Amino acid sequence: MNFADRMDAALDRTGNPCVVGLDPHLALLPDEYAVARDATAPRKDRARAVRDFCESVLDAIGDRVPAVKPQSAFFEVFGAPGIEAWESVVKSARARGLLVIGDVKRGDIGSSAAAYAEAFLGDTPDACDAITVNPYLGGDAVKPFVEQCHRTERGLFVLVRTSNPDSSMFQLHGEPPLVDRVAAAVDAWGSELVGDRGFSSVGAVVGATHKSELAAFRAALPRTPVLLPGYGAQGAGAADVVAAFVDGLHGALVNSSRGILFAYRQDRFHATPWRTATRQALDDMIRDFEQALGT
Amino acid sequence: MNFADRMDAALDRTGNPCVVGLDPHLALLPDEYAVARDATAPRKDRARAVRDFCESVLDAIGDRVPAVKPQSAFFEVFGAPGIEAWESVVKSARARGLLVIGDVKRGDIGSSAAAYAEAFLGDTPDACDAITVNPYLGGDAVKPFVEQCHRTERGLFVLVRTSNPDSSMFQLHGEPPLVDRVAAAVDAWGSELVGDRGFSSVGAVVGATHKSELAAFRAALPRTPVLLPGYGAQGAGAADVVAAFVDGLHGALVNSSRGILFAYRQDRFHATPWRTATRQALDDMIRDFEQALGT
Repeated sequence: MNFADRMDAALDRTGNPCVVGLDPHLALLPDEYAVARDATAPRKDRARAVRDFCESVLDAIGDRVPAVKPQSAFFEVFGAPGIEAWESVVKSARARGLLVIGDVKRGDIGSSAAAYAEAFLGDTPDACDAITVNPYLGGDAVKPFVEQCHRTERGLFVLVRTSNPDSSMFQLHGEPPLVDRVAAAVDAWGSELVGDRGFSSVGAVVGATHKSELAAFRAALPRTPVLLPGYGAQGAGAADVVAAFVDGLHGALVNSSRGILFAYRQDRFHATPWRTATRQALDDMIRDFEQALGT
Repeated sequence: MNFADRMDAALDRTGNPCVVGLDPHLALLPDEYAVARDATAPRKDRARAVRDFCESVLDAIGDRVPAVKPQSAFFEVFGAPGIEAWESVVKSARARGLLVIGDVKRGDIGSSAAAYAEAFLGDTPDACDAITVNPYLGGDAVKPFVEQCHRTERGLFVLVRTSNPDSSMFQLHGEPPLVDRVAAAVDAWGSELVGDRGFSSVGAVVGATHKSELAAFRAALPRTPVLLPGYGAQGAGAADVVAAFVDGLHGALVNSSRGILFAYRQDRFHATPWRTATRQALDDMIRDFEQALGT
């Protein structure tokens, strides 16, 4: 089954669009994983602590969400042992039936892009279901990723409008703004990867923080799955992103990373064990979407 | 010594701007490294063959060039053993006195960008002297890399105008084109990293294939080191890129990857051992620049 259909089936099955971003930010990890931030400890031990933390997160949230989104930077920082931890976490999440969206933001040309595509979207248990890619280099840089998705039934989320404050610096350049052009290209790149449920396997990343732009994106990209970062810690709520959904609970995934992983640091969870806080924060996020979407 | 000064010193020392791109494209490797393309072989063995090939390339060219540019995709494709090979090649190149420009094209926000910066530009023997970064996400995504360069005296080459055919798709969007805006930002990002020799440690990637635009880039970016891919296999010659240099042999590096690494596949090197062909191709490239620059 192609990625778009698997994503839609996962939304049906779980009844919510919540993606937990696995961003094991060292400074924020619970104390039991403190070895991860100890610069004098062997990288193997530090990487293992990061892996163990992610496993515990999967234990806490893995039964309820359609997908997780590991962030590769926090694994790459430990070199080869970090990549072992990454592969272990990806494999574990997929074995639990979760979709894995690798947040790798790769982008390169020709044979380099093909090598990245094979690295992250190969037909192996430790490869991702989809990855994020950067469009700056243009169509011939995205094509090898699209071809790989054809071969292995994987998906892409192309960065269109990111959630960070400076995202307008280049993404809104020109009239019409660059994002419109990138969005049109995303639609075209996905044209041959449309699944049985009407969505393509080439999605778009659009920040949940850009509430006023979401309806226009959805109108311009009727068949494009949208991945929305920026919920929670970055300020957006469920009501801000309903415009990205199609016919109820279809066509969009919403990511929260530190709002879930590090919920134990919030005042409202004072003295709550971190796993409990993480689960409660996820349950709250799911409820927020049930109310906003009326599901 | 900051990166810009080290780059300039390397140009002085070697008398040429040639960067050998370490792109170990599996299909093109000499037969003695055939295990690297054997999908049934263990990844460890395949990664080791790629490492051994790169070591042999360093043996063949390492005494003459200022820098090498390993392409991370071809290492990442082997997972953790690939990263071990990457670290080994980076460390070996630096031990030989070569500058290492990691072609990783990373770009992300906040703590993710900081983690990438630490992964590739840390103060360790297997970290790079500089890396390529993608500007699409905007200034707050580049800032953590710039801050890391401050701390560890490393450098960046920000993608401005890439060498591939579809690079105009988004990079030339708008009026003035997006690249002008990115170029201005590159200049600003480097303003606090200007070294004793007048160049900043925040460079720009500008394709050697865009001959007519190079003089304008140089005029707009007088203190920005430029890394020019696209020489050789992608069609540009030394005469096409002289406009990127400042006062003779300063301010620019020119990369050739497969034209050097896989020279043995060219008709003119028929029946020549690959190492000999690689060395001769490099010597030819150096001569091409000596003539074009009059050095």
